[in-house]
Amino acid sequence: MESLNDIDKVKKITADKEENFSDWYTQVLINSDFVDYSAVSGMMVFRPSSYFIWDSIKKYTDAFFKEVGIEDVYFPLFIPERLLNKEKEHIKGFSPEVAWVTEGGNTKLEEKLAVRPTSETIMYDSYSKWIKSWRDLPLRLNQWNNVVRWEFKHPTPFLRNREFLWNEGHTAFADEKEALNERDVVLGIYDNVLRNYLALPGIRGKKTDKEKFAGAVASYSIELLMPDGWAIQGPDFHNDGQNFAKSFDIKYVDKSGESKYVYQNTFAISSRVIGIMIATHSDNKGLIIPPKLAYIQIVIIPIYNNSNKDKIIDYSNNVKDRLKEFRVLVDSDGSYSPGWKFNEYELKGIPLRIEIGNKEVEKNTITVKRRDNGEKIELEINSLGKINSIIDEMQVDLYEKAKKFLDSHVTKVYDFDEFKKKIQNHIGFLQAPWCGSMECEDKIADETKAKATNMPFDAQQDLKENDVCIYCGKPAKHIVNFARSY
Amino acid sequence: MESLNDIDKVKKITADKEENFSDWYTQVLINSDFVDYSAVSGMMVFRPSSYFIWDSIKKYTDAFFKEVGIEDVYFPLFIPERLLNKEKEHIKGFSPEVAWVTEGGNTKLEEKLAVRPTSETIMYDSYSKWIKSWRDLPLRLNQWNNVVRWEFKHPTPFLRNREFLWNEGHTAFADEKEALNERDVVLGIYDNVLRNYLALPGIRGKKTDKEKFAGAVASYSIELLMPDGWAIQGPDFHNDGQNFAKSFDIKYVDKSGESKYVYQNTFAISSRVIGIMIATHSDNKGLIIPPKLAYIQIVIIPIYNNSNKDKIIDYSNNVKDRLKEFRVLVDSDGSYSPGWKFNEYELKGIPLRIEIGNKEVEKNTITVKRRDNGEKIELEINSLGKINSIIDEMQVDLYEKAKKFLDSHVTKVYDFDEFKKKIQNHIGFLQAPWCGSMECEDKIADETKAKATNMPFDAQQDLKENDVCIYCGKPAKHIVNFARSY
Repeated sequence: MESLNDIDKVKKITADKEENFSDWYTQVLINSDFVDYSAVSGMMVFRPSSYFIWDSIKKYTDAFFKEVGIEDVYFPLFIPERLLNKEKEHIKGFSPEVAWVTEGGNTKLEEKLAVRPTSETIMYDSYSKWIKSWRDLPLRLNQWNNVVRWEFKHPTPFLRNREFLWNEGHTAFADEKEALNERDVVLGIYDNVLRNYLALPGIRGKKTDKEKFAGAVASYSIELLMPDGWAIQGPDFHNDGQNFAKSFDIKYVDKSGESKYVYQNTFAISSRVIGIMIATHSDNKGLIIPPKLAYIQIVIIPIYNNSNKDKIIDYSNNVKDRLKEFRVLVDSDGSYSPGWKFNEYELKGIPLRIEIGNKEVEKNTITVKRRDNGEKIELEINSLGKINSIIDEMQVDLYEKAKKFLDSHVTKVYDFDEFKKKIQNHIGFLQAPWCGSMECEDKIADETKAKATNMPFDAQQDLKENDVCIYCGKPAKHIVNFARSY
Repeated sequence: MESLNDIDKVKKITADKEENFSDWYTQVLINSDFVDYSAVSGMMVFRPSSYFIWDSIKKYTDAFFKEVGIEDVYFPLFIPERLLNKEKEHIKGFSPEVAWVTEGGNTKLEEKLAVRPTSETIMYDSYSKWIKSWRDLPLRLNQWNNVVRWEFKHPTPFLRNREFLWNEGHTAFADEKEALNERDVVLGIYDNVLRNYLALPGIRGKKTDKEKFAGAVASYSIELLMPDGWAIQGPDFHNDGQNFAKSFDIKYVDKSGESKYVYQNTFAISSRVIGIMIATHSDNKGLIIPPKLAYIQIVIIPIYNNSNKDKIIDYSNNVKDRLKEFRVLVDSDGSYSPGWKFNEYELKGIPLRIEIGNKEVEKNTITVKRRDNGEKIELEINSLGKINSIIDEMQVDLYEKAKKFLDSHVTKVYDFDEFKKKIQNHIGFLQAPWCGSMECEDKIADETKAKATNMPFDAQQDLKENDVCIYCGKPAKHIVNFARSY
């Protein structure tokens, strides 16, 4: 017979974030009951506290989408092989990692069906039927769904999964300029959600041709930084021009009666950003979650003995009742010590802990402790309203800390020897001038394993007339952020 | 060159709801741009107005779930064959309609993966790891996702699809009684959503053993009625007892240190209910959608000529601004006639149409027309608040009409000859006493094609001591609703 204490012991984090980032990362996710592995390699389980975060990202992003006129739809999970094959670059990019359905019940299917890795092909098959005249444009549709990419590299929760959750926006316009205008609107929405909810700063820019999406004319991304100094791509936006329109025959009749191809865009934010958020903010005690996205925002822990139990628990419940606008848990379970609970809720990343003992009840106060910086604040029971500003401050502080880290990890480099030295130490983004040739880009990758993450919008103004490519020395056309990248 | 008028002609409904229900049903769904077929047979596209309804059903149901302590999670889409095989009855029920993934990229997988037809097996594999002591119970998890059942029967949008959207709740309890108590809570939530949002009345009851879920101890359902007099199963709830707990070794240590199996339940509402809602309320002009669930609730149509155009459009926009709490569209497009628009928005099922012409502007009024009964109401511009009660009345009237139809299609029958005659005419539910033997149930099905939909909770009190089985004449144990069923 197992003892209950053995069964319920706290799962500790043994790896150190600085010294062994990758072990720390999986320990912090799994031991905190945030996610779990599943019976399928590379596919994970979102437990309540992580699914709540994805649901919130969805809710906030979708509200912004609706404000600008993007509508939600749902398309089938399966895509017939012949449709997926219609756009040449697209199928080349995706076919190595498609999961194929070949049997239904005991019957072999006549045509293989792809489990969607992305839905351009099945959606555009419908667009070609739905779009008839200029009156049907713009058509700006989006779906929140699950996609499968059967990668063979080592899977990592959130960062490399065979199934992930995302939005995929797929829009069609009559006018090229109107289509291009959507870019800043959508990247602005993603940046807003990352910044104000996930407390993550990012770098917006254009991808190089080598790194652009399979089937796109131009791709844009928000690049983020992991604590180990590696870059990772966040949300992206692809301008597809008329590539898919031509493969799928998506044409409209304009006001003069002429038949023309539409211009299209595609954009996505995925559950990957949750992993980046956790990696960025958390520490060796466990998760740190930005308060706006925390499933439980405040845990109240009554500290009592047999003589004052009722009084202290009543007081605690009363505090909870007065914090109705927050997601609050009172843990008055007598079978665990306060110390055990402190560890447990620090591991789980509850943003604020409220301790209530004899002292607090007598003085009519509460003691609030912030999870991120350990700061203790004593509040009068009649000024609980201040919890609002503590929460807001914590949210902002997390962003500021991450922003400082990012800023200190963007280094301008003009010399390739220095570049090679710096990239060894994973110091983040190396910002360098580049001639624009894919040959140089390839050689830089070969020699340093660094890839072009994107060409930051903000950095292009720094390009000087006599800047030369960091690799070949020819005149530079762009400023590129190179980095070792996930 | 096609003419624009040809391209934009209104898609009419040519089939009659009474005379040719099944053609009418697909025409009303497809021609109104509500849903569409896709490139995969049996898988349909939810367009914005139908996806909005599913999203709303999800939102309302989920809020109720959270109130009672059910939490949202997300489990993988794929289930390894060996897991699916673990519960014998379960796999027997589902294996004929599983879609199997057998290849990833160009590689044949070592083990076939099922695209989830339902997630008991993959979820309970995790439950067996997560549940250790009584402190981990109850565990009440739910997911909103997509599932695939590769049926070979003729597909029908919403009613029989190879992919559908649903919730699947899977809960585990220490105590059997506590587990059983969940039934009325969950069926109550589903009934509330059906009644108050979809305006659909249903019949709650227990399924017979023959009709229960593969792997359950007992199943319960809300049965609904289609306008053609056929029954259709709505949301359901399954009490699984310890069946899965034993197959998946889901045990907890109780307070005394003893190891015990948990008791489990499963429950679901699916996108099928949208099809039932549309079928129930709509008419030969097109969709009728309960106002609470309509993507656009009110369309304002300005009726103008060149001389009064600006004045009337301004007035219309002003009315829209004063109806901020509703989802309102002003259609002032000059290239269509008001008559064209009336037809179009009736086809699409917009609950209220507001007409604004010279007369309205001069009298400071609006003319409101209800989609369901065609009633025209003139309102002063200063009493727009009355729109609220018009919307509420329409919502209630739709329910009342459906309830009347249902009530008039439940017939008590005590004689098997009468039963056989009545079932020919699809008159809905035949309520009859039954001995409880599967043999009688099978023979009734063989001879009449009617199946036992459920044993209504409310009807059991009507069972009299000397009631006999409608088939064999032995003493009756239950009152059963028989019907031809989808």
